[in-house]
Amino acid sequence: MGHGRVAVVGATGAVGREMVRILEERAFPLDELALFATTRSEGKRIPFGDDGLTVQALSPSSLHGFDLALISAGSAVSRDVVPEAASRGTICIDNSSAFRMDPGVPLVIPEINGPALEGHHNIVANPNCTAITAVMAVGPLHRAAGLRQLVVSSYQSVSGSGMKGIRELAEQIEKLGGMEEQLVRPDHDALPAGDVYGKTIAFNVLPFMFRADEHDWTDEERKLLHETRKILDAPGLEVAATVVRVPVVTGHAVSVFAVFERPIGPAEAREALAAFPGVRVVDDPDGRRYPTPLDAAGIDDVLVGRIRGVDQRDDALLLFAAGDNLRKGAALNAVQIAEALLGSSS
Amino acid sequence: MGHGRVAVVGATGAVGREMVRILEERAFPLDELALFATTRSEGKRIPFGDDGLTVQALSPSSLHGFDLALISAGSAVSRDVVPEAASRGTICIDNSSAFRMDPGVPLVIPEINGPALEGHHNIVANPNCTAITAVMAVGPLHRAAGLRQLVVSSYQSVSGSGMKGIRELAEQIEKLGGMEEQLVRPDHDALPAGDVYGKTIAFNVLPFMFRADEHDWTDEERKLLHETRKILDAPGLEVAATVVRVPVVTGHAVSVFAVFERPIGPAEAREALAAFPGVRVVDDPDGRRYPTPLDAAGIDDVLVGRIRGVDQRDDALLLFAAGDNLRKGAALNAVQIAEALLGSSS
Repeated sequence: MGHGRVAVVGATGAVGREMVRILEERAFPLDELALFATTRSEGKRIPFGDDGLTVQALSPSSLHGFDLALISAGSAVSRDVVPEAASRGTICIDNSSAFRMDPGVPLVIPEINGPALEGHHNIVANPNCTAITAVMAVGPLHRAAGLRQLVVSSYQSVSGSGMKGIRELAEQIEKLGGMEEQLVRPDHDALPAGDVYGKTIAFNVLPFMFRADEHDWTDEERKLLHETRKILDAPGLEVAATVVRVPVVTGHAVSVFAVFERPIGPAEAREALAAFPGVRVVDDPDGRRYPTPLDAAGIDDVLVGRIRGVDQRDDALLLFAAGDNLRKGAALNAVQIAEALLGSSS
Repeated sequence: MGHGRVAVVGATGAVGREMVRILEERAFPLDELALFATTRSEGKRIPFGDDGLTVQALSPSSLHGFDLALISAGSAVSRDVVPEAASRGTICIDNSSAFRMDPGVPLVIPEINGPALEGHHNIVANPNCTAITAVMAVGPLHRAAGLRQLVVSSYQSVSGSGMKGIRELAEQIEKLGGMEEQLVRPDHDALPAGDVYGKTIAFNVLPFMFRADEHDWTDEERKLLHETRKILDAPGLEVAATVVRVPVVTGHAVSVFAVFERPIGPAEAREALAAFPGVRVVDDPDGRRYPTPLDAAGIDDVLVGRIRGVDQRDDALLLFAAGDNLRKGAALNAVQIAEALLGSSS
């Protein structure tokens, strides 16, 4: 397989920009890089190499002849372009949820389940950003002691909604900044609400994302459940998930309660995590060293800390993890998948 | 017992101000209200009635002759003034953690365990603000089905740290507001860190409060464990808690996973919660009705929603609750305790 001709689809989005940046940072071997987005973004310049690159409008034939495509333009676009491109021989690493649960499509975090890439049919799915953060933290412990149950509450940043999420938070901060003392007793009718979140996200947290199913679970909560099971190859794993948007720009965090098949203590967990690639243990709380999304923003590692036991149990652990949702949670993981495919074929 | 002469200690703090406001809002029966704080705040005017009141400096003899004192000035002050005032006949409703776990001191949320007030020895402890929010949400379910296990992750606002917490967030928002797009890749060395949190709280979440014990649990997490057990009279209840500060001004929220002795479904839970005083069920997620801290700020009820089951279990529920940490989480609950004592003695 050659990676000579590489395309990024959705190149002007929050994740797409990171994909381009990370390809350059990691000196990904390529002969040509082409950037695609909607016609609205046609002609935009994106920094890359010495001269930058011009964004082209995506058309049905755009991906013809490309060896590799990194796609992050939403499920609808992925469903439109990925199957045909894959059938013509382009390896598609897709960041949308469109193909993640397809049994014929590997859903991969290279450090966790790299071997699942074998036998792919030119489509590899990149997991949900929160699932990646959570699984990077519990995957090493699953290997050590066998996961039985997870309770996950998330703290997800607005860049998970793309550039428009960042802009909506910024607009509301501009309106409400300086009025913090009045927010002790807010005038509820005067609070700003935007199109992305439908409620005020500045100085607030929103425990809901997208749509609820017949059991009142949201899409995002189901993703955490199903993707975690698939990535860990643990179909019976019990996952209780609650997803919450917080007024953070970048960095998704998760508070995790995990129950294991075999006893495992905080010391053993810390050791397993410290030895795992892509994880950094940050766990000296009295020294003010613990994971936060802002500390995780812009770096590659997922930070894991607050690793603790629970009184009178030897089979349960608590931990808190934070990862950059645009990098390891999306763009970096996609590029790592491409690197793994390149390595295995070279 | 007469409530004629009433004192508020810590009257210039975030909770103290709410105490004064709530005494007025609820037309609490009193002949005289005196406000005390540190000498630094002596002479400050606080709105109350037509003319307002002047803050007096707290001295060892300040509470002599008072029938009732509401105290929210930190544990050190409480340990100084409460035992002597109580021994002289002043009923002390104490918002600090100083006496909460004392077996001779009732720890009370009136709706949940009002009868525990009987036989008090002039000291009643007001629970931790996050514990109140969590227990208001799970207490009605405990009555219905018997709580066995709780996993709680919190989303706690900066007013939980008092006025200084609000000011620290406001200062950082002033510095970083308008730079949101740069926070995708922050310059970590240039981020502001203040005295209250030691790390950046604006555009971040901090999974740590105060100090860690030998098991790496924080004070605040232990409070959630021990206070929940005491209020619910459930000494064997398993509680796994993670506390997280979020850049919200007022309103503490909790994400809760609860396991019960007997089967209980979301419909039964919703019914039990809707019938419970002080709780408002807000649970129509697709209609954008779910609890948020900003919606809870300034109101009396604790909001509970996102009530859901967990696949393949009939004994577990997920829910999300938000309450005003200064009101029900502190000042309102204290005044409600005083009202309950007044009612039972009149």
